[in-house]
Amino acid sequence: MRPVTDAHSPLALAQGLIRCPSVTPQEGGALAYLAGILAQAGFSVERPVFSEPGTPDVENLYARIGEGPCLLLAGHTDVVPPGDASAWRHAPFAGAVEGGELYGRGAVDMKGGIACMLAAVLAFLDRRGPDFGGAIAFLVTGDEEGPAVNGTVKLLDWARARGERFSHCLLGEPTNPDTLGEMIKIGRRGSLTASLTVHGVQGHVAYPHRAENPIPGLLRLAQGLLAEPLDGGTAHFDASNLEFTTMDVGNPSTNVIPAEARATFNIRFNDLWTPETLAAELERRLAAAAGNTVRYSLDVRPTNSVAFLTAPDAFVERVADAIEAETGRRPALSTTGGTSDARFIKDACPVIEFGLVGRTMHQVDERVAVADLDRLAAIVGRVLDAYFPADDATPRQA
Amino acid sequence: MRPVTDAHSPLALAQGLIRCPSVTPQEGGALAYLAGILAQAGFSVERPVFSEPGTPDVENLYARIGEGPCLLLAGHTDVVPPGDASAWRHAPFAGAVEGGELYGRGAVDMKGGIACMLAAVLAFLDRRGPDFGGAIAFLVTGDEEGPAVNGTVKLLDWARARGERFSHCLLGEPTNPDTLGEMIKIGRRGSLTASLTVHGVQGHVAYPHRAENPIPGLLRLAQGLLAEPLDGGTAHFDASNLEFTTMDVGNPSTNVIPAEARATFNIRFNDLWTPETLAAELERRLAAAAGNTVRYSLDVRPTNSVAFLTAPDAFVERVADAIEAETGRRPALSTTGGTSDARFIKDACPVIEFGLVGRTMHQVDERVAVADLDRLAAIVGRVLDAYFPADDATPRQA
Repeated sequence: MRPVTDAHSPLALAQGLIRCPSVTPQEGGALAYLAGILAQAGFSVERPVFSEPGTPDVENLYARIGEGPCLLLAGHTDVVPPGDASAWRHAPFAGAVEGGELYGRGAVDMKGGIACMLAAVLAFLDRRGPDFGGAIAFLVTGDEEGPAVNGTVKLLDWARARGERFSHCLLGEPTNPDTLGEMIKIGRRGSLTASLTVHGVQGHVAYPHRAENPIPGLLRLAQGLLAEPLDGGTAHFDASNLEFTTMDVGNPSTNVIPAEARATFNIRFNDLWTPETLAAELERRLAAAAGNTVRYSLDVRPTNSVAFLTAPDAFVERVADAIEAETGRRPALSTTGGTSDARFIKDACPVIEFGLVGRTMHQVDERVAVADLDRLAAIVGRVLDAYFPADDATPRQA
Repeated sequence: MRPVTDAHSPLALAQGLIRCPSVTPQEGGALAYLAGILAQAGFSVERPVFSEPGTPDVENLYARIGEGPCLLLAGHTDVVPPGDASAWRHAPFAGAVEGGELYGRGAVDMKGGIACMLAAVLAFLDRRGPDFGGAIAFLVTGDEEGPAVNGTVKLLDWARARGERFSHCLLGEPTNPDTLGEMIKIGRRGSLTASLTVHGVQGHVAYPHRAENPIPGLLRLAQGLLAEPLDGGTAHFDASNLEFTTMDVGNPSTNVIPAEARATFNIRFNDLWTPETLAAELERRLAAAAGNTVRYSLDVRPTNSVAFLTAPDAFVERVADAIEAETGRRPALSTTGGTSDARFIKDACPVIEFGLVGRTMHQVDERVAVADLDRLAAIVGRVLDAYFPADDATPRQA
């Protein structure tokens, strides 16, 4: 094993990844770059490619070192498109540094996070050697920002089939709204999308008694869905929330009563609900609002996004301790925000998420403070030291 | 003046008109056909063509005979497109008769009506000669089913500039829902269209506190518009009525809260309202519903469609008497239904509408009973006889 060099600094590794144009589903050289470094550090590296009719083939990476209880470090190297590249202060795949900030698509979401985890692991192995009393695995997909069909879900199935087992997982998504150290995600709300169609009878606006306008019916059903909160939140979750995302009739004629009106809504729901109980509640509310007068149909889209919580245990405390030691902040334990691949990983082992500051993610001029990269790597280093204590043959686990 | 022949029967004249393919804005030979017959009957005939940037030029016809108080007979020869001609039982411009019914586009709306008025006038002139103690004019446009810009409005302006004056007008639109004789229109409701936009702030559905969903605001404003009836109707008018015709957001992303939501509605309003008082009422209702929380804008489209009523007077009674004499039915005096060119003619003279049975208008297999054509011509003949009594040098007017 060679010593850690400047080439293995969080900044250098992040630049190396950003310079690979890995817009989903393109691998762009990013996984190959990781594979080379991990193999050199002594990891066994696998590069499974997954396929599914109707979606592009996607490359993935799985790497493992050591024996015993395994800490899984998870993430993705694919990035969303840069948009108008000419609008960027620095080219989105150049990895330029200015004013103490690293610019580039993926700087925070989440090539930066992977670079920090990798830098911390390389330094840890350099300090402790390969017999550190446990195992470390990297599970990195190229399909998180896209359909997410040929990524983490299949990679976990593949690993399970090989007999791979994990004790805990740290997923390096950007979890801090504004400042490094603010927030750990210990769960996520579920997401359910449904479309509501109200059926009427087309006709002329001058003869409304011969038609049946579906729009007032849609207003009534929408009010029925929104009238009462779904819940008041739980110990670790905000209240479940329903947002209408679109409402469409598409009738260009101002003298015609349309035949149908449609709306789509999305619910982010907490651990009081499953998709099934939520769908039943929707049906109950709609039936009550519709009475015998509104004809409608509800199409609830299948979802694999359920609410989950990683109970705040010793592992969570250990990560929070490491964050506080480096940043002086005790992170909030949150379940807010969108979904992530944690919703799949939670079936394999307890998973928590901690990464960089997400403020610029998916935007033009996505960027990260170089100092944050160093601090996040130091935090992960502290987590590794605490997870695999040097003075104890048995790893300290939660 | 030559005597009335079979070629001047209501059926023959209707067939002659139907065989001219005069889909708006095409003249199709229909006005030329009328002009020839009217000139031969002694009318002075004018064929003004009107233009307006952005709309097609449109041919029109104005014909007059006699001196003194003038009864105006009004209508249009343009027709809506036939749609799928192969779906018709008989070709839409063939004028075929089967089972006692005349098939063809315009059979009831309203080449049939014009044919009946023309047949009645030709027979009347044949009976009475050109010195019948008054004047008869035909005002026929080729732009009623289209933009209605180069039609009746300009034709009336043109006639007014020439010093033409009218005592009463009979407009031959199809006014009977099911049976000839059911209904005279003695006025029409006004029509006002407006678009409502609610402004929000786009964002991610998982972070609703950072966004502002315009859809609940639109629901609230729509409910505010619909909550109370506009009025309870008046002596001759139904209650004013508001119908939402479309509601559109057009957001394809189920995880994005949209920035704007739009709706369009149309109001058919009675003689309690003008477009101005109605717009003020809409603004009042919206402001009350919006409070300080919903940001919106209302775009009321300019309209020349105001509610009007021709007071039921002796002329209306005379027409109703003629209808009852021929059909055995006393017609209802109605202001229901859509708008018509009567809304323009009412500024020139009192106008009422009576024509054929409208059930098949604008549909495939538009058709009219031949017996109805004969009865409508007979009704118009009775109106002419009553309007220009033979035993009195001064015409009996309302």
